[in-house]
Amino acid sequence: MDYQRVFADAIDRLHAEGRYRVFIDILRNKGAFPNARCFAGHNGPKPITVWCSNDYLAMGQHPKVITAMEEALHDVGAGSGGTRNIGGNTHYHIDLENELADWHGKEAALLFTSGYVSNDATLSTLGKVLPGCIIFSDELNHASMIAGIRNSGCEKRVFRHNDLAHLEELLAAEDPEAPKLIAFESVYSMEGDVAPIHAICDLADKYNALTYLDEVHAVGMYGPRGGGIADREGAAHRLTIVEGTLAKAIGVMGGYIAADRTIIDVIRSYAPGFIFTTSLSPVLVAGALASIRHLKSSSEERDGQQAAAAMLKAMFREAGLPVMESTTHIVPLMVGDPVKAKRVSDILLAEYGVYVQPINYPTVPRGTERLRFTPGPQHDEAMMRDLTSALLEIWDRIELRLAA
Amino acid sequence: MDYQRVFADAIDRLHAEGRYRVFIDILRNKGAFPNARCFAGHNGPKPITVWCSNDYLAMGQHPKVITAMEEALHDVGAGSGGTRNIGGNTHYHIDLENELADWHGKEAALLFTSGYVSNDATLSTLGKVLPGCIIFSDELNHASMIAGIRNSGCEKRVFRHNDLAHLEELLAAEDPEAPKLIAFESVYSMEGDVAPIHAICDLADKYNALTYLDEVHAVGMYGPRGGGIADREGAAHRLTIVEGTLAKAIGVMGGYIAADRTIIDVIRSYAPGFIFTTSLSPVLVAGALASIRHLKSSSEERDGQQAAAAMLKAMFREAGLPVMESTTHIVPLMVGDPVKAKRVSDILLAEYGVYVQPINYPTVPRGTERLRFTPGPQHDEAMMRDLTSALLEIWDRIELRLAA
Repeated sequence: MDYQRVFADAIDRLHAEGRYRVFIDILRNKGAFPNARCFAGHNGPKPITVWCSNDYLAMGQHPKVITAMEEALHDVGAGSGGTRNIGGNTHYHIDLENELADWHGKEAALLFTSGYVSNDATLSTLGKVLPGCIIFSDELNHASMIAGIRNSGCEKRVFRHNDLAHLEELLAAEDPEAPKLIAFESVYSMEGDVAPIHAICDLADKYNALTYLDEVHAVGMYGPRGGGIADREGAAHRLTIVEGTLAKAIGVMGGYIAADRTIIDVIRSYAPGFIFTTSLSPVLVAGALASIRHLKSSSEERDGQQAAAAMLKAMFREAGLPVMESTTHIVPLMVGDPVKAKRVSDILLAEYGVYVQPINYPTVPRGTERLRFTPGPQHDEAMMRDLTSALLEIWDRIELRLAA
Repeated sequence: MDYQRVFADAIDRLHAEGRYRVFIDILRNKGAFPNARCFAGHNGPKPITVWCSNDYLAMGQHPKVITAMEEALHDVGAGSGGTRNIGGNTHYHIDLENELADWHGKEAALLFTSGYVSNDATLSTLGKVLPGCIIFSDELNHASMIAGIRNSGCEKRVFRHNDLAHLEELLAAEDPEAPKLIAFESVYSMEGDVAPIHAICDLADKYNALTYLDEVHAVGMYGPRGGGIADREGAAHRLTIVEGTLAKAIGVMGGYIAADRTIIDVIRSYAPGFIFTTSLSPVLVAGALASIRHLKSSSEERDGQQAAAAMLKAMFREAGLPVMESTTHIVPLMVGDPVKAKRVSDILLAEYGVYVQPINYPTVPRGTERLRFTPGPQHDEAMMRDLTSALLEIWDRIELRLAA
C-alpha cells in the first residue's frame, strides 16, 4: 500500500482536469469595500476590486457591526470557551436566537458554527428522529444539504430543479403514512433563480410532508424586513424549518435554523454537530445581532444591491456577454469550460485588478463552468463600465462566444 | 403520520432519563476570568466563578489576543465574505496555517471552522480517497471523530481505550495490503488520561498504517512550545496528521489539521466540509495567530495551569472526594448518576456561585456521569478551598459517596 502515490494521484487528477484550485490571497479594506489588497503574483499588495464576495450588502464593514463586535470583545473576550452546554452559552447567543426567531416568524431558533453545519446537523438529525423518513431534495441543493441528507441515512428522492410536477410525482409514489421532508433552497446561488415556495408548500400540505428551506442566499436581502424570500412572499409561516447564514448578507460568520419550539429543542438535544462543538465566539454573535437589527429596519442596502445587479445585468446584456437568466442579485456569466473560466479570471486579476473567482466542478456541473458576479450597493457605475469593457476585451482575446 | 407527537416524544425521553439539558446563560468578565455574570434564575446578573471553561489558559482575555482582533476588525472588517476558494482566503489565514505547520513540525496546515468540522471533514475525506481503508478507532474518541469515520463509509474497528494489545490484535487480523488508519486522541477530555503515542506509532509502522491524532485538549498546554503531547514526547514527526483546535487553550474559535503538503492539498481539494463553507472570520484568525505566537514562547500559562490542577486534585483527594485518576489538567469528579450530577451542579450555582456543568450521556457512558473541573492559571487557592468545602457540604446533603 503506497499512500503517497494515492494522494499524489488524487492531486494529479485535478490538474489534468484543469480544476486544481489556487486560493487568491487578499485582505479587504474596511470602509472601502469592494476594494481590497491582493498578495498574489507580484511584489507587495496590489489594489483590486472584489466582485465575488458573499458579503453581499457590505455589512462586514458597517459601523454598527464593527462597534458591537469591539464592545463584545472588550466585555467578554475572544471566544466562548465551551460548547453551548458547557460554559459556552452566552447572553448574546440567547438574544440572537430570539432575534432570528422573530425575523422568520417562528417560535425559536438555534445557532450553529456555520450554515454548512446547520444544514448537515439538522437534516441528518431530523432523518434519525423520524424513522423511515423519505427526503425529497432539489437536484441543485447545496453540498451541505446533500451531506446532511446522506448522513441521515434516509431514503432520498431527487427532483428536477424547481420542477413541481416531478416533485409531486415522487411524493405521490410513496406510502402516504411514511414521514416525508422536502428540502430546497429559496435562491439558488449559482443560477440566481428562485424556488416556488408557496407551490411547494401546497404539495407538502397535500402529501403531509415537512418542509426545509435554505435561505442562505436570501436572508437580509429580500422581504420588507430582510427575512428572505419566504418573508417577501408571506410564506414563512408555512415552512417547517427555515435555515440561514450569518456569513453572507449579515457580513459575519455562523449559521442557524428557525422553527417551532419543539423542533428546535429536538435538534438542540440530539444533533452531535450542535452539541459537541465550541459555540460561536460572542464577538461574532454580537456583530450578527447588530447587523440583523439594522437590516430589519433599513431597506437602503437591499435597494442598492438590487439596483446594482439590474445595472450590471443590463450592461452585460447590451455588450452581448452570455449573462445567465437570473431573477436575483446574482449575475452569472457562462463560460462552459474550466480552463477558460480560470483563464478569464486570471487575466482580470493580473491585468485589470478585478477579482472574480471561476466556478468549476463540483460547485457547478461540468461543462457549465462560469464566472459569478455579486454586485452590491458599493459597486458603482464606473466600476461596472470598466468591468464590462475588460470582459469584452478578454472574450475577444481568448475567442469566447458572445450571447446569441 | 403525527410529526408533533414524534418530536414531543423525543424530548419526553430526555426528561424521563434526567438528561434534558438546560443551558446556563452567562457572560464572562474579560480581564477578570474565571469570573462571569450569570443570568439564570434570579433578578439581574449574579457573579459566578466558572470552573468548566475550555478556555484553559484564559487566552481569550489576553491583551495580545484582544489587540490583534481589534486591529483585524478595523483593518478588514467582520467576516471573510466567502469560502476559501471564493473571496474568503485572507492573508491572515495563510499566516496562521504557516504558523500551525511550524508548531507541529509539519509541512503544511489547513484551517476549518471548528475542531468538530476538521475531524469530520478530514476523516470522512481520507476514507473516500483511500478505497478499502479500515479505520481503527479508540473507543473513547470524540463524537466528531466518530462522525467523520461513519461518514467516510469505511470499515471501522474499535479498540479498547488506550489498549495496545487490542489494537495490535485488530491490526494483525486485516489484510496487510489494505489501507489502514489509526485514529486517536492525545488527552481524553472526560478522563484526563493520555494515549501512548510512540507505542501506537510503533504499531502503525509495523502494520503500515497512517495515524491521525486529535490534540484538541493538549495544544497550547503541553510541550516546550505548547505544540501538544506529541510535541512534549518528541513524536510529532511520526504522526501522519495532527488535528487541533483554536477554541480551547488558544481561546478563540476554529479547528485545523497539520500534515505533509500533499495530504493537506488532498483534504483542501476534496473535503466538502472545507470547500463549501465560509472561511473563519479574519478577526478570529488574527486572534488565534497572536495567541499561538505568545504560547510558543511563554510557558507561564502552562506552568500556572499545571500547578492549579495539581493543587485542586490534592485538595479533592484530601477531602475524600471521588476525584478520578487523571494525569493532565482535567479534574473529573465521579457522581455516577445523571440526576444527582445535575443536582450538585444546580446547588453549586444557586447557593455558592460556582458554575460547573454536569457531564451526562451521550458525552460520557451512562452510569459514569460526572462533574469536570478545569482549573487554570487564574483559579487561586482561596477559590479552590471554597469549592472543596462547598462540594463536601453538598456531598453530605444529598448523600453521595466519598472516595474509598
